[in-house]
Amino acid sequence: MANVLRNSAKFGFSGVLSQLSIHSRHGRECVSPCFSLQQRNNSTSPKIKVDLDSSTGVAVLRMQSPPVNSLSLDFLTEFCINLEKLEMDRSCRGLIITSTLSKVFSAGLDIMEMYGKSPERCGEFWKAVQEMWLKLYGSNMVTMAAINGSSPAGGCLMSLGCDYRIMADNPRYSIGLNETQLGIVAPFWFKDTLVNTVGNRAAELSLELGLLYSAPDALKIGLVDQLVPEDQVLSTAQDTMSKWLAVPDHARQITKSMMRKPTIDKLLSNREADITNFVSFITKDSIQKSLRMYLEMLKSRKA
Amino acid sequence: MANVLRNSAKFGFSGVLSQLSIHSRHGRECVSPCFSLQQRNNSTSPKIKVDLDSSTGVAVLRMQSPPVNSLSLDFLTEFCINLEKLEMDRSCRGLIITSTLSKVFSAGLDIMEMYGKSPERCGEFWKAVQEMWLKLYGSNMVTMAAINGSSPAGGCLMSLGCDYRIMADNPRYSIGLNETQLGIVAPFWFKDTLVNTVGNRAAELSLELGLLYSAPDALKIGLVDQLVPEDQVLSTAQDTMSKWLAVPDHARQITKSMMRKPTIDKLLSNREADITNFVSFITKDSIQKSLRMYLEMLKSRKA
Amino acid sequence: MANVLRNSAKFGFSGVLSQLSIHSRHGRECVSPCFSLQQRNNSTSPKIKVDLDSSTGVAVLRMQSPPVNSLSLDFLTEFCINLEKLEMDRSCRGLIITSTLSKVFSAGLDIMEMYGKSPERCGEFWKAVQEMWLKLYGSNMVTMAAINGSSPAGGCLMSLGCDYRIMADNPRYSIGLNETQLGIVAPFWFKDTLVNTVGNRAAELSLELGLLYSAPDALKIGLVDQLVPEDQVLSTAQDTMSKWLAVPDHARQITKSMMRKPTIDKLLSNREADITNFVSFITKDSIQKSLRMYLEMLKSRKA
Repeated sequence: MANVLRNSAKFGFSGVLSQLSIHSRHGRECVSPCFSLQQRNNSTSPKIKVDLDSSTGVAVLRMQSPPVNSLSLDFLTEFCINLEKLEMDRSCRGLIITSTLSKVFSAGLDIMEMYGKSPERCGEFWKAVQEMWLKLYGSNMVTMAAINGSSPAGGCLMSLGCDYRIMADNPRYSIGLNETQLGIVAPFWFKDTLVNTVGNRAAELSLELGLLYSAPDALKIGLVDQLVPEDQVLSTAQDTMSKWLAVPDHARQITKSMMRKPTIDKLLSNREADITNFVSFITKDSIQKSLRMYLEMLKSRKA
Repeated sequence: MANVLRNSAKFGFSGVLSQLSIHSRHGRECVSPCFSLQQRNNSTSPKIKVDLDSSTGVAVLRMQSPPVNSLSLDFLTEFCINLEKLEMDRSCRGLIITSTLSKVFSAGLDIMEMYGKSPERCGEFWKAVQEMWLKLYGSNMVTMAAINGSSPAGGCLMSLGCDYRIMADNPRYSIGLNETQLGIVAPFWFKDTLVNTVGNRAAELSLELGLLYSAPDALKIGLVDQLVPEDQVLSTAQDTMSKWLAVPDHARQITKSMMRKPTIDKLLSNREADITNFVSFITKDSIQKSLRMYLEMLKSRKA
Repeated sequence: MANVLRNSAKFGFSGVLSQLSIHSRHGRECVSPCFSLQQRNNSTSPKIKVDLDSSTGVAVLRMQSPPVNSLSLDFLTEFCINLEKLEMDRSCRGLIITSTLSKVFSAGLDIMEMYGKSPERCGEFWKAVQEMWLKLYGSNMVTMAAINGSSPAGGCLMSLGCDYRIMADNPRYSIGLNETQLGIVAPFWFKDTLVNTVGNRAAELSLELGLLYSAPDALKIGLVDQLVPEDQVLSTAQDTMSKWLAVPDHARQITKSMMRKPTIDKLLSNREADITNFVSFITKDSIQKSLRMYLEMLKSRKA
């Protein structure tokens, strides 16, 4: 951590990187607080693995894209295709999302999708981010995040899209919409989702300061619903799921829609403007310059 | 409880009845979690008794319709007439609602009003449910629920309509909008009232799962304001009332209206659609069939 | 306190003054719960002192208008001019508001601005109250209230306008929007600001009862963010400020605007109606009569 701050000072990033919380082991793993740099991987091996237990109607979706389950366009596309398949499969009533990686659930949006890309490509990427949230927040399935590692920014958004959040009781794991810390602004639908979950004042503090919460602090403000020992995150999600599935589906789905539809409709009716807004922001020279320096810093740490 | 589940399994109700929490003594009393079956009573004895203390300006409204203060059309009509009388009576400034029955405040809507009735009659019934809430939530009086027993579904709604909720500190008493558990959807104004009281996230969990909260848990999420020993529920309501009545009426009333009017206006401008919606849902063959089986189950338990 | 109640009974004010919490020492200081009577002071000495530390970019605004920092038209004008200057000064990024007076942050609106004044003057006054809130709630600076004394009504509103509230851990200091206790109604934008801070239900109770919270109770409901020993209020605000200023300004400002703009826009588009409403209320004979009696009571206490 101290090392990172020295590096970032060297790169002139002090403001932007002041709260970087990087959990590093053997210099290989790196959870950036907001954007993550995925090691390029040309293999076509799937980034996501889905197991549907037809006896229970519960699918477990495992994110397995090392090193940090960055949300790249490929990742998001694969994620959404899987989500859509499960949504259409009448034998599937519940979905648990978790990670196969040690220490990280998802590190959020992939920085490489935002650096040096054409506006068209940036827009395509942002549309995929929207799609991930729309599909999750409005899913007819019971959705649970089994958060077995850190989950900043886009990873936090994915968790917030679920019906219930169970996190590993490890104070070293953090979660939060920390975009502001990096000089980025969480868009209105990130904000709406957070307000719906933790209330207006906690969301205000959280977003203005770009706070990352340790697991215990996240529980305190209601950002997650439950903490359990790390090795029980998935099994607790499965136990909890069976309670949710005891509720009649139809009534639960209509109720969920009643709670969430206004928030979803707000994005649906502003979707293009939100994309335009993101693209014009991210393609600014000043932001691209910041991303470049950030990337170089991350690369130098890997070297 | 185990017995009920066996019965419900026998009747093929497992999903719908999985969380029935019936408090039975000598096989006579039965608080269904949502709809209640009132023993028919042809007497014209009042279901409600009102005592107005002209020295304090405080009326106590006692629900005395055994076995479980079901909200039938007759009950609701009597309730609303009494409420209206008190509202017009300038000597009455405060209203405390309580029950004369042991263990139950109100078990909610009367299932007999929804089974085998004409659409017209169903609509009349639902209009009376709306009226009860509109009159309570918008009352100029200070209103307090002295909740001396379980209060599921419609009974919970009645409590939420008041300014303040004091509940007997008995973990066996439960309260909540548990409609979803029975395959029914709480309408938007039930939801709005709950969100106004416990916030968005607690309401979301509560409604999606159709949760019934024990008195201590209800206090924790703010569904009730205070717990006191069972024999002090009414006296505490009277003490608390005197503090509320020390506040200048006019300013308090305008403030209350400022807080609640948007929620009330939302129902007022959607009242007919809400009735149509209820009638078309409740008169569906599938729902009527469920109600019939539910009724038979309740009757068999009484036998 | 007992003395005040006897006096108020004598003046026939029992309802209105029933919750007066006056902290008096040597009969000189008097924090009225809502409106305060400022000793007239013809000197042109400033009511506000601002120190901007150009090394940190943090300004401390000290309210120094004895006896109780009443919000008179002069005070508010001076306050807004100072706020505007700092807002325009690019070297100023953070603002801490505190009081030089012992035991009181600000006692709220000055009653003399509302008694025996022309409608025009009353309107001018109310516009200044609006302006104070608009400038604070929408400030681009990081704003902190270092609440080193009681802060009822208008004083509470000023605190709520800031980004963060640190209060002296003294149970004798109180804070709250207690207008209702005096027969006055907090306008919708006071209400909106309170709801944004403590949530709907706490705001409802708070406003309907006109509650003043002791510092510990204020912390419990989130009306203030932090309690510290009295002599550390300012230094803690300065430490906290440095953490806020580590967040990139631009992203924080856009985020703040996203959170607060809807509430600000609501007043902006109803500003004239809100002034008309206030003026027509405050110039009513009945209200003027109440104010006169209230004033006489305050004067008699000073004698």
